[in-house]
Amino acid sequence: MASIPPTLQTLIDELSRLPGVGKKSAQRMALHLLRQPREKSQTLADALLAVKDRLSLCRRCFNIAEGDQCPICSDARRDPQTICVVEQSSDILPLEKSGAFRGLYHVLGGVLSPLDHQGSDDLRLAELIGRVKDENVREVIVATNPTTEGEATALLIAQVLKPTGARVTRIARGVPVGSDLEFADEATLSRALEGRGEI
Amino acid sequence: MASIPPTLQTLIDELSRLPGVGKKSAQRMALHLLRQPREKSQTLADALLAVKDRLSLCRRCFNIAEGDQCPICSDARRDPQTICVVEQSSDILPLEKSGAFRGLYHVLGGVLSPLDHQGSDDLRLAELIGRVKDENVREVIVATNPTTEGEATALLIAQVLKPTGARVTRIARGVPVGSDLEFADEATLSRALEGRGEI
Repeated sequence: MASIPPTLQTLIDELSRLPGVGKKSAQRMALHLLRQPREKSQTLADALLAVKDRLSLCRRCFNIAEGDQCPICSDARRDPQTICVVEQSSDILPLEKSGAFRGLYHVLGGVLSPLDHQGSDDLRLAELIGRVKDENVREVIVATNPTTEGEATALLIAQVLKPTGARVTRIARGVPVGSDLEFADEATLSRALEGRGEI
Repeated sequence: MASIPPTLQTLIDELSRLPGVGKKSAQRMALHLLRQPREKSQTLADALLAVKDRLSLCRRCFNIAEGDQCPICSDARRDPQTICVVEQSSDILPLEKSGAFRGLYHVLGGVLSPLDHQGSDDLRLAELIGRVKDENVREVIVATNPTTEGEATALLIAQVLKPTGARVTRIARGVPVGSDLEFADEATLSRALEGRGEI
């Protein structure tokens, strides 16, 4: 549109590349940024680049880290004998919020997904096997997503870890807390029934 | 949360200051930015600062401009004898999209709002009067928002422009196109009835 100066249009285009940001929200954000003092935009610009410059992957678990090790791996209070395997580092946040896990993580970097040409070589499996052997790990909890790809990956992990003798478990799939049975799908209900436990 | 490195947390905090961005969306954006190449973040960072460095207000209508005049004021095909008065420059975008207006704009910079300590001195009224006199304006269309403050401001504009002899009109208030009468509020319906026209 001719009524938007090109510099502003560039910002709107760049903002609308962010996930979950449409053209209208990008416009709103850009006008908001235009109204606020320059220092605020500078802070945001600095934060954007700092993330790329200062962060890398944890050498041990491949979570996002500032330095060699991520905050979880460098926390001496965590149990190093239990490893929770996740697909992406973003999966760690909700698990940490639950407060129910006190071990370490291992970020696979994906799942088996033939449609996306992603095979077992694209996952950090060798690194996982290495850790289980070297770090005297007793249990590996597989927390890949409850999707077809996630389940296939979980089976693969159990297979490749069999020689190490470590216990390999899978997080429970069932009806979400606070939900309504009426709206649960059959696959979930079937899993919930299979995985039932004593009261 | 201890599991997020401080640099990443800073970016999340900065992103969540943007309008319409909550903590979860900011987290999603930050992780997306972390995954993409550095140049993309650099482009966004540059765009953020360019907006603050290169844009200013149009000398004539106070719309956002790159240089002295905004794209609309410097467009010779627009009719300079009709001025549409809006509250904010962001109000120009939807009006331009409608394609129904070919004159120039005047950005007031707010509305009369005693609760926000905003009086007539905080609006660009003197500049509007000056333009109407100097630019031989025939009609001023008041397109402030259809709120109490917007209506009060419209009345004030009509009052201060009376001595100039220019025609002062107000955009129609009525039922929005494509809406359902069942859900229209009384004030809107009452305006729609008052403003009825021949078929």
